[in-house]
Amino acid sequence: MLTMVRMNVRIPLDFDKQEAARLKAREKERFQELQRAGKWRHIWRVVGLYANVSIFDVESNAELHDILTSLPLYPFMEMDVTPLCRHPSSLHDDDR
Amino acid sequence: MLTMVRMNVRIPLDFDKQEAARLKAREKERFQELQRAGKWRHIWRVVGLYANVSIFDVESNAELHDILTSLPLYPFMEMDVTPLCRHPSSLHDDDR
Amino acid sequence: MLTMVRMNVRIPLDFDKQEAARLKAREKERFQELQRAGKWRHIWRVVGLYANVSIFDVESNAELHDILTSLPLYPFMEMDVTPLCRHPSSLHDDDR
Amino acid sequence: MLTMVRMNVRIPLDFDKQEAARLKAREKERFQELQRAGKWRHIWRVVGLYANVSIFDVESNAELHDILTSLPLYPFMEMDVTPLCRHPSSLHDDDR
Amino acid sequence: MLTMVRMNVRIPLDFDKQEAARLKAREKERFQELQRAGKWRHIWRVVGLYANVSIFDVESNAELHDILTSLPLYPFMEMDVTPLCRHPSSLHDDDR
Amino acid sequence: MLTMVRMNVRIPLDFDKQEAARLKAREKERFQELQRAGKWRHIWRVVGLYANVSIFDVESNAELHDILTSLPLYPFMEMDVTPLCRHPSSLHDDDR
Amino acid sequence: MLTMVRMNVRIPLDFDKQEAARLKAREKERFQELQRAGKWRHIWRVVGLYANVSIFDVESNAELHDILTSLPLYPFMEMDVTPLCRHPSSLHDDDR
Amino acid sequence: MLTMVRMNVRIPLDFDKQEAARLKAREKERFQELQRAGKWRHIWRVVGLYANVSIFDVESNAELHDILTSLPLYPFMEMDVTPLCRHPSSLHDDDR
Amino acid sequence: MLTMVRMNVRIPLDFDKQEAARLKAREKERFQELQRAGKWRHIWRVVGLYANVSIFDVESNAELHDILTSLPLYPFMEMDVTPLCRHPSSLHDDDR
Amino acid sequence: MLTMVRMNVRIPLDFDKQEAARLKAREKERFQELQRAGKWRHIWRVVGLYANVSIFDVESNAELHDILTSLPLYPFMEMDVTPLCRHPSSLHDDDR
Repeated sequence: MLTMVRMNVRIPLDFDKQEAARLKAREKERFQELQRAGKWRHIWRVVGLYANVSIFDVESNAELHDILTSLPLYPFMEMDVTPLCRHPSSLHDDDR
Repeated sequence: MLTMVRMNVRIPLDFDKQEAARLKAREKERFQELQRAGKWRHIWRVVGLYANVSIFDVESNAELHDILTSLPLYPFMEMDVTPLCRHPSSLHDDDR
Repeated sequence: MLTMVRMNVRIPLDFDKQEAARLKAREKERFQELQRAGKWRHIWRVVGLYANVSIFDVESNAELHDILTSLPLYPFMEMDVTPLCRHPSSLHDDDR
Repeated sequence: MLTMVRMNVRIPLDFDKQEAARLKAREKERFQELQRAGKWRHIWRVVGLYANVSIFDVESNAELHDILTSLPLYPFMEMDVTPLCRHPSSLHDDDR
Repeated sequence: MLTMVRMNVRIPLDFDKQEAARLKAREKERFQELQRAGKWRHIWRVVGLYANVSIFDVESNAELHDILTSLPLYPFMEMDVTPLCRHPSSLHDDDR
Repeated sequence: MLTMVRMNVRIPLDFDKQEAARLKAREKERFQELQRAGKWRHIWRVVGLYANVSIFDVESNAELHDILTSLPLYPFMEMDVTPLCRHPSSLHDDDR
Repeated sequence: MLTMVRMNVRIPLDFDKQEAARLKAREKERFQELQRAGKWRHIWRVVGLYANVSIFDVESNAELHDILTSLPLYPFMEMDVTPLCRHPSSLHDDDR
Repeated sequence: MLTMVRMNVRIPLDFDKQEAARLKAREKERFQELQRAGKWRHIWRVVGLYANVSIFDVESNAELHDILTSLPLYPFMEMDVTPLCRHPSSLHDDDR
Repeated sequence: MLTMVRMNVRIPLDFDKQEAARLKAREKERFQELQRAGKWRHIWRVVGLYANVSIFDVESNAELHDILTSLPLYPFMEMDVTPLCRHPSSLHDDDR
Repeated sequence: MLTMVRMNVRIPLDFDKQEAARLKAREKERFQELQRAGKWRHIWRVVGLYANVSIFDVESNAELHDILTSLPLYPFMEMDVTPLCRHPSSLHDDDR
């Protein structure tokens, strides 16, 4: 089941640089784990911003909630969640 | 080069049904042509709305403008355009 | 899987009264069918408006999209879709 | 009498973790007390956010105000209040 | 129980003048009936607009919904509903 | 001359509790002085919020500005000011 | 007593040209009458728009409401009303 | 050449009171200098707010930018700039 | 003196095609006249929209108002006007 | 390929003055480097604000993202990105 999530990241200017670097490294690790598992199907940078557009492929809303709220950078993120589904015109069974 | 476009379609209630059907058929045809060509990389329906989220892969802004404004349903569409680029954390060279 | 949908209905002032009455009757019938099936779990009127807040219990986003877009009054509705999930503090296994 | 309340919670990043845990425990306790009493009829998590959608069943606006403003996490909450009433199409006398 | 309702009225430019006059006369009549009954406690014009701010004193949300949706000018009104309650600083038992 | 003012109060989480209590006591005192003088004709709590809707009866905009900006809690308030006047349908000479 | 009013004018594209010209002539006449009387103290065009920013000098909100709602172009106007008062830093007793 | 500027002033609650008083005195001085020079043609307080509506009469956009950005309170101001011009209906050559 | 204007064009779906083509031809002619004269310094299409971003170089706000409001497509345009000035970091005397 | 970027700069009031001056000097240097290279084609100040409107001429979205996010003042900027393309009415092959 597909859902689009736009994530805007705002780390305060005076936040500890080392701690930020550590959280970003953990975020990347967790992202790649989910990408390999096929849960985090796509991710793109939004040009000019510290933000991304992502497509998740999950079993349920509950699974998505658990994934999002346990991200290392979650406390610094503003999330915008849009449920999606297959488009009837697509040539693919499932738009990968 | 990747760009996300969200398209909201609004066909007036009193618009001729046959003409609408004809335009939708042409829109589907044109979409599939662009999908096969790899220009219209993804399309998803937004749940509950007559709207889609699409990812385009084009050479330039000018090419994208020509594609969008020549869509058969273009006069009924509200477009929201967001330039994207590859995310540095992705395991793929280019997020397909 | 739970999703909240807010529906605002706008039937044009000059729309045929009999056709409107016929569509409303069909909408009610369809609603009750879905309520009996447990898909449309809750519906409430928003005070002072021709609008409702509804809770759907569906298998997937795709099922919800099919339900919403086939409602008899769909062409007159503005939909706002919010994915929900069980709240960890609730005393119930599933908040009915 | 039914009212929907959406609550967005924002605890500052530098707020004392222990104090936050204590307030959350008290919030949960108070919530369950009100849920058992039938005042806080429903609660759902909003996917991806530290937010909930709740349905209250109270005698009056004054009772609702007292309940909301005395919640342990109230100082960290942004409230959006929408008065509801029974929907005439519902098969139930009162949409539980 | 007190609720504030702001009503913005928009009658289309080409709406029949006589029918509009007839509806306005019925609206005034209905308003005065409710004012005499103490249900429509206050009404004020918003300066420069075809709009009013009103305070209702009703038993429940359901009663308010019935009053508002049966107003003769209801199909031309945009409603904004805000639940109120007594202010603890007021010298009056109930702010009339 | 009537004016509606909506006041939203935001006292920072880390503001000194004793100083806040002192300001609130002075605010209440000042409010009651103005209520007795007939200047602050009505005040109601907005359900669920630290906010009020008030109706002022003053000689001029200048008098209202002086009243509002000298309130003890003024530095913590966000004001929304809407000029009102008597509604022609009202049965009262002046809507008290 | 001073109030700023911003007026945006929207005459439908298919509105009768002669009737529009007649209404504009009457609007200009009425404006000049109020300008001579000192009630409509200032008027400026907003660059690029069919809109103006005006300063009124009236006895009360009620007088302003009567002036605005009886303007010949009133049915085509969107009004935004902002109460003003003398600025304490001004060198003039009353900012003309 | 006329331009309207709305200035909202926000001095943080914990900003040094003496420094604020010093900046306000310098702001007043600078304002009066510009008022005498005919550059700052009008200023009015917005009722209930720490904000003003001002009309500037300058040679060019560049001159206005220099005036605004060198105001002593500029770092605390939010500016909204609207270019104006003479209204053709005005009885005055230039609306003073 | 530089000003940015964003123009969004909305021609109704049922507007006469020939009249639209005639107006567009006149708009293009007028645009090129102003471009040659150096008044309309830049114009760019906004990707995916029937809209442009333009930079004007005029003597005064009044001149800009006259240019904009006499454009053949003006009745179909929504204008957003932003006054600009030279940036102090630019290597050019005047940013062409 | 052309893109418009609006940049709003917000440096906190209590940010170290010397560090701010150092960052601004580096920003200016980097800007001029990009202006000389023809990447940062135009820049203009927005009147009354610490903001600019810029036109970039880059090979791709990815190149623009790298330019923007590596600006010395980037952590203090709010970016609004609008893809542009040549306007068909322009007399120039490429609107410089």
